[in-house]
Amino acid sequence: MSRVTPRVLRGFRDYLPQKMIPRQRMLNAIESTFQRFGFVPLMTPALEYLEILTGKYGDEGENLLYRFQDQGGRDVALRYDLTVPLARVVAQHNTALPWRRYQIAPVWRAEKPQRGRFREFVQCDADIIGASEMCADAELVQLACELLESLDVKQYVVRLNNRKVLSGLMEKIGVATGKDERGVCQTIDKLPKIKEEKTRELLRTENGLDEQQVQTIFDLLSLTGKTESVLGQLREMFPDGVGALGVAELSEVFAIAKATGANSRVELDLSIARGLDYYTGTIYETFLSDLPSIGAVMGGGRYDGLIGVFKGAEIPALGISLGIDRLLEALIELNVLEEKLSITNVLVSVFGADTAGYAGRIARELRRANLACELYAGYTKIGKQFRYADRRAMRWVVVAGTDEAAREEVTVKDLASGEQQTVAFAELVSHLKSASAE
Amino acid sequence: MSRVTPRVLRGFRDYLPQKMIPRQRMLNAIESTFQRFGFVPLMTPALEYLEILTGKYGDEGENLLYRFQDQGGRDVALRYDLTVPLARVVAQHNTALPWRRYQIAPVWRAEKPQRGRFREFVQCDADIIGASEMCADAELVQLACELLESLDVKQYVVRLNNRKVLSGLMEKIGVATGKDERGVCQTIDKLPKIKEEKTRELLRTENGLDEQQVQTIFDLLSLTGKTESVLGQLREMFPDGVGALGVAELSEVFAIAKATGANSRVELDLSIARGLDYYTGTIYETFLSDLPSIGAVMGGGRYDGLIGVFKGAEIPALGISLGIDRLLEALIELNVLEEKLSITNVLVSVFGADTAGYAGRIARELRRANLACELYAGYTKIGKQFRYADRRAMRWVVVAGTDEAAREEVTVKDLASGEQQTVAFAELVSHLKSASAE
Repeated sequence: MSRVTPRVLRGFRDYLPQKMIPRQRMLNAIESTFQRFGFVPLMTPALEYLEILTGKYGDEGENLLYRFQDQGGRDVALRYDLTVPLARVVAQHNTALPWRRYQIAPVWRAEKPQRGRFREFVQCDADIIGASEMCADAELVQLACELLESLDVKQYVVRLNNRKVLSGLMEKIGVATGKDERGVCQTIDKLPKIKEEKTRELLRTENGLDEQQVQTIFDLLSLTGKTESVLGQLREMFPDGVGALGVAELSEVFAIAKATGANSRVELDLSIARGLDYYTGTIYETFLSDLPSIGAVMGGGRYDGLIGVFKGAEIPALGISLGIDRLLEALIELNVLEEKLSITNVLVSVFGADTAGYAGRIARELRRANLACELYAGYTKIGKQFRYADRRAMRWVVVAGTDEAAREEVTVKDLASGEQQTVAFAELVSHLKSASAE
Repeated sequence: MSRVTPRVLRGFRDYLPQKMIPRQRMLNAIESTFQRFGFVPLMTPALEYLEILTGKYGDEGENLLYRFQDQGGRDVALRYDLTVPLARVVAQHNTALPWRRYQIAPVWRAEKPQRGRFREFVQCDADIIGASEMCADAELVQLACELLESLDVKQYVVRLNNRKVLSGLMEKIGVATGKDERGVCQTIDKLPKIKEEKTRELLRTENGLDEQQVQTIFDLLSLTGKTESVLGQLREMFPDGVGALGVAELSEVFAIAKATGANSRVELDLSIARGLDYYTGTIYETFLSDLPSIGAVMGGGRYDGLIGVFKGAEIPALGISLGIDRLLEALIELNVLEEKLSITNVLVSVFGADTAGYAGRIARELRRANLACELYAGYTKIGKQFRYADRRAMRWVVVAGTDEAAREEVTVKDLASGEQQTVAFAELVSHLKSASAE
């Protein structure tokens, strides 16, 4: 085998342990919140038939698909998100409804690599299928809140809107439904990033709107004040049609959220548009109040039409998706999580081949008592083993040479205090348990 | 969007919740055992430069790579295992050694689909890098035992061998090192599947050995008896050279494993060869004694040369890999795990829009007390909601109509006994907690 330069593809990355340890803690908290809400796990293949994925993400999205022909000459692609595969599963397996599932898995998009944007990233999705009533939308708003609370984040806001309100607005200014409307929504979706002036310009140049149409959009987007008062103004603006339907749905979600007791973090924000084509009703994004600059850490909404593409009959559905990379960086910056090199606090050192079995017995005893420990993987000088533990911020080193082995004893060194103590093998577990409780 | 037939690619599959729920439980147990042993998590990309993966798996393996050109014209491939990417990481990031990491992730191989063999499957790997001493090999044997014990499997056997012993044997019968030797190992690896006669035939036809050479191989493979006695015979057969080195390594691993206290499940098996090219020392496979027919559920070994391909300098390394699909089927068959449709025991029913907020409050209260529950996602007839809970084997349904909401009460129905009871909202959590403890 000849020498090969070790490297990863642009836009891809290795997640080394110092980042993976807090990331795993975060994912465990997210998964247990999903489960506390009764969502069940699902796993779909990384590779799908190309035709399953095309026609769902808009032209911009579709260009980012990793597609190729497999050994059997089939056109295949790596999944772009978890929502379209979910819609396929529901249609294919005739799942009994309503149904709520979660999936935590990587997705792939051949985006132009830039800071904080990767071509492979993990999505955490929870979706409810077969639910047309607004109690389901309110449940996902509640889930968004609890996901952050379970991660010890208290300062956040869930911004809520409804695609039907935007559709009503398009109707009002004479933009055709379908492609034109979705184009305008995609431009509005860029507002927080590119600001008002540039958005106005794009609406004129890219979407072909006139000054009057653009102004009507911004009149709506700039409605502010208490949710109840804005909802009142919207009711006047949209007395009937799809806009009125959207306002009624928004009002019901807010009413349920308020009664549930979670609404202090939930705000109406008419500029939330979501870029993807398939949304049809409630849409939401969640932001960290202490780090607004990082953008939305969660987003989602209702997509009542998507499953019908596979199923024939329409099935209402809605979901929420969490971008864990952005959230991890935020939680580290906010000191909620910290980078670590080791997952254990105890190193069991090994002197040499003659005592390696005794050291193995020590490690086995600790682990069976649910005390995680690392057995040093070699017969290196003991000083080097102490430095190894120290550099990884481990607190205890358990040492056992030939004498200790013969007497069934061990010496425990506390790297924090520098103190060391010799205890009987049989007392090691209780010694370490009481020492770590101090 | 036009109608698309929902389907998955051959050799791929959806893991539906009834399988995913026990699978997730199994993965959690595996991950926590890895952590109890001090292994830290690592994540590498699904896609690698093609040249990173080629030349490591033998011709048979290399043909199974999913390879293509990406948008930038680069030759890329989906990872085939987790070991080669690990070797790349160690070389690329100059990881401080010794280092032990685990990774749980899917790999892709374009195998001919057949019963129980898939083109996408999850591997659970734990590896120790930078450890040349046999205490590390014994540690992985210990890990193999504890992984199964933590899954409540008590009847298993870890079969141990050493590639150097096989190399000594090749030396003895005059098979050249390198490609020829690896070819013979690959044939021996097939012995449990294709049995002795067919193996002898392949050794003659595929590997070009004569009858005498084949007989010498089977003389070695058929050595039986107590480990100590077989090791003694091996010492006589290989007085020096690479074979003697292998016997010494084997002896040391057995001695440490015995002193550690785990050796009753560890056996010497000279027919264990492992198919992959890169093994250089200790090799092992683990079998379930109650289900020998499913083959090895874990395997691994020492691959001291692999990292050098990326690094220039040689770095000793060894690992263990667990095939979770096979293991999951086995544990379900052995009744250690069971398929389930729901992850929660409690359904909170919803009467209509006017009480949806109160139902949401009930669900929130339960979840905050760490009682998982599902909020029914709709305003369906209450009888249908009860059937929904029943079909998913949930035990309790919490019901709250307008009257109950006004009085801050809830009615709890126990689907197991058929009894129902009305309790104050404030007492719901303690009611359910004591009821589930019964």
